[in-house]
Amino acid sequence: MKIESVDFFYVSMPVVTTEADGSQDALLVRVAGGGHVGWGECEAAPLPSIAAFVCPMSHGVCRPVQDSILGQNLATPADIARMSAQVAYDSMDLLQAAHTMSGVEMALWDLLGRARGEPVWSLLGYKTSFPKVPYASRLFGDTPQETFAAARLSRQQGFKAAKFGWGPIGRGTARQDADHFAAAREGLDADGILLVDVGQIFIADVERAAERLPALEAAGAVWLEEPFQAAAYEAYGALAKRSGKVRLAGGEGAHDTHMARHLIDYGGVGFVQIDCGRIGGIGPAKWVADYASARGVTYVNHTFTSHLALSASLQPYAGLEGHRICEYPAAPKPVVEAYMANRIERDGNGEIRAPDAPGLGMQIDAAGLRRYLLDVEIKVGGKVLYRTPAI
Amino acid sequence: MKIESVDFFYVSMPVVTTEADGSQDALLVRVAGGGHVGWGECEAAPLPSIAAFVCPMSHGVCRPVQDSILGQNLATPADIARMSAQVAYDSMDLLQAAHTMSGVEMALWDLLGRARGEPVWSLLGYKTSFPKVPYASRLFGDTPQETFAAARLSRQQGFKAAKFGWGPIGRGTARQDADHFAAAREGLDADGILLVDVGQIFIADVERAAERLPALEAAGAVWLEEPFQAAAYEAYGALAKRSGKVRLAGGEGAHDTHMARHLIDYGGVGFVQIDCGRIGGIGPAKWVADYASARGVTYVNHTFTSHLALSASLQPYAGLEGHRICEYPAAPKPVVEAYMANRIERDGNGEIRAPDAPGLGMQIDAAGLRRYLLDVEIKVGGKVLYRTPAI
Repeated sequence: MKIESVDFFYVSMPVVTTEADGSQDALLVRVAGGGHVGWGECEAAPLPSIAAFVCPMSHGVCRPVQDSILGQNLATPADIARMSAQVAYDSMDLLQAAHTMSGVEMALWDLLGRARGEPVWSLLGYKTSFPKVPYASRLFGDTPQETFAAARLSRQQGFKAAKFGWGPIGRGTARQDADHFAAAREGLDADGILLVDVGQIFIADVERAAERLPALEAAGAVWLEEPFQAAAYEAYGALAKRSGKVRLAGGEGAHDTHMARHLIDYGGVGFVQIDCGRIGGIGPAKWVADYASARGVTYVNHTFTSHLALSASLQPYAGLEGHRICEYPAAPKPVVEAYMANRIERDGNGEIRAPDAPGLGMQIDAAGLRRYLLDVEIKVGGKVLYRTPAI
Repeated sequence: MKIESVDFFYVSMPVVTTEADGSQDALLVRVAGGGHVGWGECEAAPLPSIAAFVCPMSHGVCRPVQDSILGQNLATPADIARMSAQVAYDSMDLLQAAHTMSGVEMALWDLLGRARGEPVWSLLGYKTSFPKVPYASRLFGDTPQETFAAARLSRQQGFKAAKFGWGPIGRGTARQDADHFAAAREGLDADGILLVDVGQIFIADVERAAERLPALEAAGAVWLEEPFQAAAYEAYGALAKRSGKVRLAGGEGAHDTHMARHLIDYGGVGFVQIDCGRIGGIGPAKWVADYASARGVTYVNHTFTSHLALSASLQPYAGLEGHRICEYPAAPKPVVEAYMANRIERDGNGEIRAPDAPGLGMQIDAAGLRRYLLDVEIKVGGKVLYRTPAI
């Protein structure tokens, strides 16, 4: 089939706050061809990502993403890889292109899977979609009491694992942070899997990060996530040598496979966390899953938004039985729930798996999408390059 | 002074082609505060870069660049570094932010220099702006005869050095490429400095790049530039071990100091080429110049557009006497000449230097800018977020 159209839908909560909660808006992508439709989602700033799709060409290797997609032939996974390679080359100087392409690429897999009646994980070469242990992904409370309550709630909701992120961690003393780690442990009980995410707060300062290690180890944290900037590989590598039982985790900032690979090779992470909505989509993420798996590094999805993004993020490692943990948005904002007509529910064991259904196996609720849809219009030189499409 | 306004101007040739010529459009930035005005330029896709400045916030670390700039206090270089750090953190998940900030940061230096009556290189701590040997930056011809003619023209125009880039190189056989390298050498005469740029054509394929090395060495090429993708450090490192007298060059794709540093540490380049319009501006570029200098790596600017961008790109290494080569746009498109009221001319030795004048020392020709200015309008939710400002 030929790719006939690519449409972007920018949805947002009426009010967006400075909270580190990425589910306050979303950018959905609808790709159509051959009588079929596929959906994807960029984990990205919506407006610049739309602009990267429709902008005028600047020169031969600074072309809009659409030039590598519209009218292209899609029959096999190799066609998706070809389009990705063309974006990487022809949009080399357009930094935002990777984030834009991520949602488009996801939608191409969904489209291909639907056209062939096959789940994406099967198109990727997996025979089985293994169950994963979802961890409830939450923000740290402002006080240890709030963190305790959030941990307790996670257990009450049936989660065996919980991740706490951002909030006050790294902004005060190591002693204050230790109180939060201990509160999270207490709330999760002794057998809960505790994961900690500090959102790049230490930039590249190994000593400040290392100060938190004893308390993390005492609380039995399995990983310390994103202590540093995404490309501060040496800082990761230096901390990894000192982190003992607490393994480092990172990778959500990777916008190409090189970055993920370098975090493994130079950064010494034990867990590599890939957001399919940023790294260029499902194909690049699968490449990282294979690379990590071959090196004894555990692959984990990074997903903080919708169940469409969740399904996409499970596909690259659906068939890796030993890579068990998965991020599960536990308390997303209404906007990213409104446009889903179905969800990925936990089974009797509290586990989830990539759907055994064509494509990504997720259905869009058009009425819910319309409820949060923003009207956007971009004009250049008197010509409308983008206007929110009909749904 | 307080930063009172930041305005973007998108100028373009009436027709933009797929030629690898980055001077076909430009994004100018005007920053005003305390009765002074500074100018900068993003080396970036203009529309997504504007969008990254004005877009609605997505969450706490996906904020528009403007949130870290407007209303900020600017009195010293440390204030610029503070704003850069804030963009890096608060716009962590906005990929395009680095390209947007690059032009803004440049304009902040220009503004500060004008307000203090001091050249930017002096604000950076240099005592002298040393002369540089400009190389004429050109594209390879479609045939060796055209490449020969371009090389001959460079000598006739008084350039001791010339760089040839892109075009057919790497798209045919190593033998065909060798004819181009030999033609360039012949056109430059025996004493001309020959530089070769292949624009990431080999992606990460070390063998295909290595096939070109004998002909490059035979032609006396000083460097082979960008054989691979910007972050394919291992490929650079592997080729560097085999490249003999031909040193590797790269770095123009660096959008943060980490990438430039890694190209030195892991990629083994002999020349690191930084575009101030991409790496985040003049401050990050100066950091790379210091880092390179301390490790015996030669710093070179990357500049293919206006003399405003050229002045900015000279500042970070103006005071490094031994780092002599500089890129000089030899045949830019009229659009990037139209908005300059002055130029950086070669002296009697055919050399240039960063201007000994306040700020970046360059004047904008408003009438020329208006001639190529595009009308852009971006509306979200019924609100105009951007409209081409008056000049």
